[in-house]
Amino acid sequence: MTEKSRKELINQLVTNIVASYKKELYIKPHDLCPLPNRDVIIEISKMLRQLLFPGYFSKQTGMSEIIEYHTGELILGIQDKLSEQIVFALCLEANKSQAEATCRRVTIKKQADDITYEFLSRIPRVREYLATDVQAAFDGDPAATSKDEIIFSYPGIFAMSIYRVAHELYLLKVPLIPRILSEYAHNITGIDIHSGATIGKYFFIDHGTGVVIGETTMIGDYAKIYQGVTLGALSTRGGQALRGFKRHPTLEDGVTVYSGASILGGETVIGADAVIGSNAFITKSVPSGTKVSIKNPELIFKGNSSTEYNPEYIADWVI
Amino acid sequence: MTEKSRKELINQLVTNIVASYKKELYIKPHDLCPLPNRDVIIEISKMLRQLLFPGYFSKQTGMSEIIEYHTGELILGIQDKLSEQIVFALCLEANKSQAEATCRRVTIKKQADDITYEFLSRIPRVREYLATDVQAAFDGDPAATSKDEIIFSYPGIFAMSIYRVAHELYLLKVPLIPRILSEYAHNITGIDIHSGATIGKYFFIDHGTGVVIGETTMIGDYAKIYQGVTLGALSTRGGQALRGFKRHPTLEDGVTVYSGASILGGETVIGADAVIGSNAFITKSVPSGTKVSIKNPELIFKGNSSTEYNPEYIADWVI
Amino acid sequence: MTEKSRKELINQLVTNIVASYKKELYIKPHDLCPLPNRDVIIEISKMLRQLLFPGYFSKQTGMSEIIEYHTGELILGIQDKLSEQIVFALCLEANKSQAEATCRRVTIKKQADDITYEFLSRIPRVREYLATDVQAAFDGDPAATSKDEIIFSYPGIFAMSIYRVAHELYLLKVPLIPRILSEYAHNITGIDIHSGATIGKYFFIDHGTGVVIGETTMIGDYAKIYQGVTLGALSTRGGQALRGFKRHPTLEDGVTVYSGASILGGETVIGADAVIGSNAFITKSVPSGTKVSIKNPELIFKGNSSTEYNPEYIADWVI
Amino acid sequence: MTEKSRKELINQLVTNIVASYKKELYIKPHDLCPLPNRDVIIEISKMLRQLLFPGYFSKQTGMSEIIEYHTGELILGIQDKLSEQIVFALCLEANKSQAEATCRRVTIKKQADDITYEFLSRIPRVREYLATDVQAAFDGDPAATSKDEIIFSYPGIFAMSIYRVAHELYLLKVPLIPRILSEYAHNITGIDIHSGATIGKYFFIDHGTGVVIGETTMIGDYAKIYQGVTLGALSTRGGQALRGFKRHPTLEDGVTVYSGASILGGETVIGADAVIGSNAFITKSVPSGTKVSIKNPELIFKGNSSTEYNPEYIADWVI
Amino acid sequence: MTEKSRKELINQLVTNIVASYKKELYIKPHDLCPLPNRDVIIEISKMLRQLLFPGYFSKQTGMSEIIEYHTGELILGIQDKLSEQIVFALCLEANKSQAEATCRRVTIKKQADDITYEFLSRIPRVREYLATDVQAAFDGDPAATSKDEIIFSYPGIFAMSIYRVAHELYLLKVPLIPRILSEYAHNITGIDIHSGATIGKYFFIDHGTGVVIGETTMIGDYAKIYQGVTLGALSTRGGQALRGFKRHPTLEDGVTVYSGASILGGETVIGADAVIGSNAFITKSVPSGTKVSIKNPELIFKGNSSTEYNPEYIADWVI
Amino acid sequence: MTEKSRKELINQLVTNIVASYKKELYIKPHDLCPLPNRDVIIEISKMLRQLLFPGYFSKQTGMSEIIEYHTGELILGIQDKLSEQIVFALCLEANKSQAEATCRRVTIKKQADDITYEFLSRIPRVREYLATDVQAAFDGDPAATSKDEIIFSYPGIFAMSIYRVAHELYLLKVPLIPRILSEYAHNITGIDIHSGATIGKYFFIDHGTGVVIGETTMIGDYAKIYQGVTLGALSTRGGQALRGFKRHPTLEDGVTVYSGASILGGETVIGADAVIGSNAFITKSVPSGTKVSIKNPELIFKGNSSTEYNPEYIADWVI
Repeated sequence: MTEKSRKELINQLVTNIVASYKKELYIKPHDLCPLPNRDVIIEISKMLRQLLFPGYFSKQTGMSEIIEYHTGELILGIQDKLSEQIVFALCLEANKSQAEATCRRVTIKKQADDITYEFLSRIPRVREYLATDVQAAFDGDPAATSKDEIIFSYPGIFAMSIYRVAHELYLLKVPLIPRILSEYAHNITGIDIHSGATIGKYFFIDHGTGVVIGETTMIGDYAKIYQGVTLGALSTRGGQALRGFKRHPTLEDGVTVYSGASILGGETVIGADAVIGSNAFITKSVPSGTKVSIKNPELIFKGNSSTEYNPEYIADWVI
Repeated sequence: MTEKSRKELINQLVTNIVASYKKELYIKPHDLCPLPNRDVIIEISKMLRQLLFPGYFSKQTGMSEIIEYHTGELILGIQDKLSEQIVFALCLEANKSQAEATCRRVTIKKQADDITYEFLSRIPRVREYLATDVQAAFDGDPAATSKDEIIFSYPGIFAMSIYRVAHELYLLKVPLIPRILSEYAHNITGIDIHSGATIGKYFFIDHGTGVVIGETTMIGDYAKIYQGVTLGALSTRGGQALRGFKRHPTLEDGVTVYSGASILGGETVIGADAVIGSNAFITKSVPSGTKVSIKNPELIFKGNSSTEYNPEYIADWVI
Repeated sequence: MTEKSRKELINQLVTNIVASYKKELYIKPHDLCPLPNRDVIIEISKMLRQLLFPGYFSKQTGMSEIIEYHTGELILGIQDKLSEQIVFALCLEANKSQAEATCRRVTIKKQADDITYEFLSRIPRVREYLATDVQAAFDGDPAATSKDEIIFSYPGIFAMSIYRVAHELYLLKVPLIPRILSEYAHNITGIDIHSGATIGKYFFIDHGTGVVIGETTMIGDYAKIYQGVTLGALSTRGGQALRGFKRHPTLEDGVTVYSGASILGGETVIGADAVIGSNAFITKSVPSGTKVSIKNPELIFKGNSSTEYNPEYIADWVI
Repeated sequence: MTEKSRKELINQLVTNIVASYKKELYIKPHDLCPLPNRDVIIEISKMLRQLLFPGYFSKQTGMSEIIEYHTGELILGIQDKLSEQIVFALCLEANKSQAEATCRRVTIKKQADDITYEFLSRIPRVREYLATDVQAAFDGDPAATSKDEIIFSYPGIFAMSIYRVAHELYLLKVPLIPRILSEYAHNITGIDIHSGATIGKYFFIDHGTGVVIGETTMIGDYAKIYQGVTLGALSTRGGQALRGFKRHPTLEDGVTVYSGASILGGETVIGADAVIGSNAFITKSVPSGTKVSIKNPELIFKGNSSTEYNPEYIADWVI
Repeated sequence: MTEKSRKELINQLVTNIVASYKKELYIKPHDLCPLPNRDVIIEISKMLRQLLFPGYFSKQTGMSEIIEYHTGELILGIQDKLSEQIVFALCLEANKSQAEATCRRVTIKKQADDITYEFLSRIPRVREYLATDVQAAFDGDPAATSKDEIIFSYPGIFAMSIYRVAHELYLLKVPLIPRILSEYAHNITGIDIHSGATIGKYFFIDHGTGVVIGETTMIGDYAKIYQGVTLGALSTRGGQALRGFKRHPTLEDGVTVYSGASILGGETVIGADAVIGSNAFITKSVPSGTKVSIKNPELIFKGNSSTEYNPEYIADWVI
Repeated sequence: MTEKSRKELINQLVTNIVASYKKELYIKPHDLCPLPNRDVIIEISKMLRQLLFPGYFSKQTGMSEIIEYHTGELILGIQDKLSEQIVFALCLEANKSQAEATCRRVTIKKQADDITYEFLSRIPRVREYLATDVQAAFDGDPAATSKDEIIFSYPGIFAMSIYRVAHELYLLKVPLIPRILSEYAHNITGIDIHSGATIGKYFFIDHGTGVVIGETTMIGDYAKIYQGVTLGALSTRGGQALRGFKRHPTLEDGVTVYSGASILGGETVIGADAVIGSNAFITKSVPSGTKVSIKNPELIFKGNSSTEYNPEYIADWVI
């Protein structure tokens, strides 16, 4: 095409797209306070992992004797960055109902600082819980050769590390940042734990891809779940009306849930030491000590069983 | 070992590996037109997200009033890069049957430019559909605190954004690039939507990890699916013979599919407003308004139900 | 707060966290030999992909005639980096029971070099197997337009490429590095194949998200599995006592496993050409040629089937 | 050394260095408002170069017809970043004498915005001057093959581009940022032009390394200087007492100064069309049209002139 | 200001700047073939340094025995990138007088390939010359501790490496790229050698900042120059009329030029083994074996010579 | 050309270049211990700048009260990296005359650690000197608006910071690393100070481009020099024979040297408070309190002094 027509074409594209930015039901340009910065929050999560597991994710060696400096530097760095991101998150929330001028008020900065200090003061307790999670993985996976390997490379431990810090921020009522942390862990591991869930000690998620743990889930100590397990809510299309209600199940101490099982509903309680088999679909409570499985599969023989490989189309069977 | 023997060893390794490059059945070196560049295509997808959701993924603030410049710059940048990648993709396809000289012909560049303009002219319609997807997520997830949070961090919306643009490129018969886009979204979210699928308005994928939606799937409006849902084909080993046939199911308006359910086959139709329970395995059609579930699980009590935690090996039960 | 109180607060945080580093049951600072470097190992995996699929993941064109130089350069680079990482891994393992001084002994470097050469000498065989995997994907997926597309963008082929090289390192008794490679592929594709598993030719994983293949799994030729399939162990909490035992199932030649099925246990054998339906939960052996499915779903009609869309809460049904 | 002594050594180092941070005459830790960010200012300078020379330093092609979008995007980006850096610079200056609380006052942001708009409104005039500088380089250097080459690669033009924008910021009384810009150009080109200097049209600096042009220098139109030329002040050790006085020379229209010449002093005026020879040391005014050179060198013959190469030590001659 | 006025202000800025892009004498947007890419050319120069000095600037060790692979890979990489950049440079030149369509003609690509091969075939000769330059530095600088140190860190050798390859490209009539290479070395070292200059063996530039060597300079073997030396042209304002004429001096074998000396003019010949003292300004020829210095400085005593330090203003003396 | 001839051409190029790697007088591949890593050394220099000027080059704010953590972290990081680089440098030196096996001996690591601790213990003294350099710049440059500006942006202070630390490493007999540091500062500032030079307090280099200060130079307190000043050696071609001798001049307290002056020779002493004018060429000692200038320039009138601009060629005058 000629240059002239190119100019006309581009101008037409711009006009049409900008027009769509102003239509009633379409998504409008976001134009309030800046959103928290996802990249910075991921960087903070990496600093937190260094703080939680000293020596595993930093480059320096032989530092156990003089670890105060590194620890202090990490804390100052986290405090600096996290407090700033919390300001953004609080502003964004505030802007919904308040004047824009509120955004940078001293009070918000002060509030963010207080939250950050309180959050950091909880790190030792988070470490206490994570130590039990590592132990649970070591006891639960014969393929693990050492706790080092578990801390360094197990996606379940990665997801739990992020969850346990995101959960503290959730309890401190920080908006949006716990969600960004959860989705980061979800992206890395395929494990989607809402920061609002309550999870006890010695929790082990093996493999983990596809695990979903909803906002109001409650899990006791010594539970163990596998990849693809859903601890979810029953479907709704009414949305926000249910907000705040307990919509997800409760797992008591020592429960085991095999891969792919779905347990739904806020009143569903899986009793202590119960075992849920793969691919079960549970929407009612299960007593303690019970084992639950889907109906035994039927074996369907078709003619003589053949050991010959036949690469043809094999879709003609009916279930 | 001595340097000399190292030289011999390396030479031997090179000789053997290069020899394997020439063997009959092995994978040969790729040596035609350059492949489209995955990194550039991902960059284009990020620019498209800025175009679709203005203000959410760019750094500038307060720009809603004068958004034409940013929009124009984005369009010019996308057009420049996308058109070039389409040239590579068309060349690669052409090279299968034509002479190498065809590769850079003016006609291909002209064709790529026309496709790019047509694609960009469809952006307002894509935005119209995505606005309904965001609304569906807001109505369907009580944990969502705002539409901002949904746009900014929900993997389902990420996957749908990529799908909806990849689908337009698929309709415009662009080779390979829709696949690269889909696999990018698949990598980020665990949601694998083939760009050929047809999906109506108000579609919500919750959590999403493990979702598969095949090439010839058709989905109406107001459908909702959960993580781990497969809308797939029955297995074949005959491969290319089935190409182009409808191999994946149809979901009518308002269908809900819970986590882990598999719905297979090109003639399988899930009627309007039907609900499919978790982990169902469906290969036949289901009438409208029906609820389908796997057989109720059996509860297997073993002796007295014990509430004591027993961390011993618990594999001795038979299903 | 005043600067003074800030100083006190920070000092308190440091003191408490450092104190937690010294508690009995908590995770201690890692302070032995350096861990293998995850970033370098990922870089090595990218060089290996260039070696396995020449021309697909490098930028140079028209090089098939003079590919020796690029091949030699790749081999030298891989050998250099991989041998160094193996030294770290062997040292880490040795440090558990030996004096720190052992760490850099010449013998370890020599051992690492020998392993690296042996590993590289197996690349042609790995290529032989991968060529059959690509063929299996081409035969098994009607949506594939060419083998180029499969090599370039299919997550199943990505995961198998990483698995097949990690498996050779596992057989050569390299610690930790195979795990890092597996978790990298797991992160990218959602497919978690333990490097210890034994997998035959013509293996195809379609879509793949959520697949788990355990350490002692054995798979014959021409098998095919879908997303969400688990080839796993029965749960244990005794952990390390089971190490080395066969805990995962065996799949004979030509087996097909649909999405979401779980097959557990070291004595479970799926006979040749058997087909396992979606979401089956198998803990006993299945004869050859059999087709296995979960119990037919029941259809639950509720009043008159309605084709009207009703977006209300739909959780009032009981399974 | 033992780990224990290492701890003591490090603690000792920290104590001593921190002690030195508190000594009376030493440099104290900087602890006021954040300094302007050098990296961001360099990024701004690159955006300004794109604005001044459209098409030369950006990647897009064929855009001359529809350049408004790119221009608008650049202006918005520069305005955003520059205004923020000016806030930092104004705060830093203000903090010297005012309370810390002043730092983020709305008035400073408003002031920074006004300065930025005024600055951007002067860009067309800056372009007018730079066009004459490019012309002067083309007329003055027979080695130049085109104006494109001059704009794209001549250090003199690079330095003048930075100077001409830094000068406008200097006139607008922006602190520190003009200095950072000048030192950036100084680092890249070896040409050190103080942003306070006044320079007319058609100015050409050839090669340029070592050129120094002081704060109160005044240069007319059509001047030309070579590498190593100093337009400087006479030395002082009294420092700040001289601040604001004219300390550097004046060059009238059409003056030429050859490499290495030094012209010093605020009352020194080089008359129109005068030519100053290499390495002259000028501290008094020179009339118009004059040519000035250092005293003819003496030729010192030593014995017979030898054409043979003698690489021996040649330091025994006296000047 | 209000958002509305912001919009007006920005629109006004864009309008005015775009208007200035269309003014008669101003610099127009560049809109022809793409310019060669400076970053790629710098990358090529780094690959060339690896080729010229094997083992000094690459990371691999112990490779001298099997250096063919690395060498081959470097050559293929350089050839690929350099040939493409030469196409851009030739197109740019051609566009001045020919139709745009010529730009990507096969003939230009063929021409660029031929130039690249010829260039690479000259590398051994370039290495031969550079070996003598390194020797000259080792003989000429008592502070050098080894030739390794010279190759690895001397700016004079850096500048000569770039010059000697840029000179070959100049001789092969490649446009613009030699200039980009020279300015890169100029930026790094402060040494500005035009790629057209002719320089013999055993050439040593000590320190080097501020050295200028013009396009038509001719230098014999065994010459040595110091920082700040200019081998330049007499000033002109007529510009292009002088193009192609010899405008810069000739230095015969064994000449030494001390820091800051300027030697100007195309007919100026410095005879063999002559020595030019610091800061001399030479515009006439100097016989062989001569030593030339500026006039002995005068010593100006002022009252009694004082050994006391007096930090007052010391500008009251007249020269 | 055909692919076949391309292969032949490339092979020919490789053969010829590799052959040149084996020629007697050419530069051989470097194949000993790894060279110190320039990038790491530059990174160390940046950490040292943070240690020397706390708060100026790091991002954290408000940290003066709790600076111990940051200081400790910096020291640990510098110690770790610097000690490793010193091992490389010592190995490289040792390899000249000893067996390769020595390279990683424990003794060298121990030696490097000791040097590093000693070096770090001298930082407070280096800070003491640098504080006087900053004061000298503030007293000597009326254009400076604050000491912050000087520390943050003056090239003279940058060069002195690097010199003062490099000098300590030189005194501790660390090979090569001081050179790499000096050349880094030389590249950034155009100021080339050999790390062996001895420089007193209150030293100010203004502008600085082109300054050279040789290895055996000695400078007292309160000296001040300008851009382009050489404190050098008389030329030699005998090279290594002169190593270790005093070859560069001595400047007593309070000396001022204007731009472009060259002072050469190991026995040349500039007496206290002497002033050397621009472009002087000094090879003999100068008494204290003296002012030295080049011979007054002659003024050469040509016809009537014209104030009209005449852009013609102006090379017809004789000096």
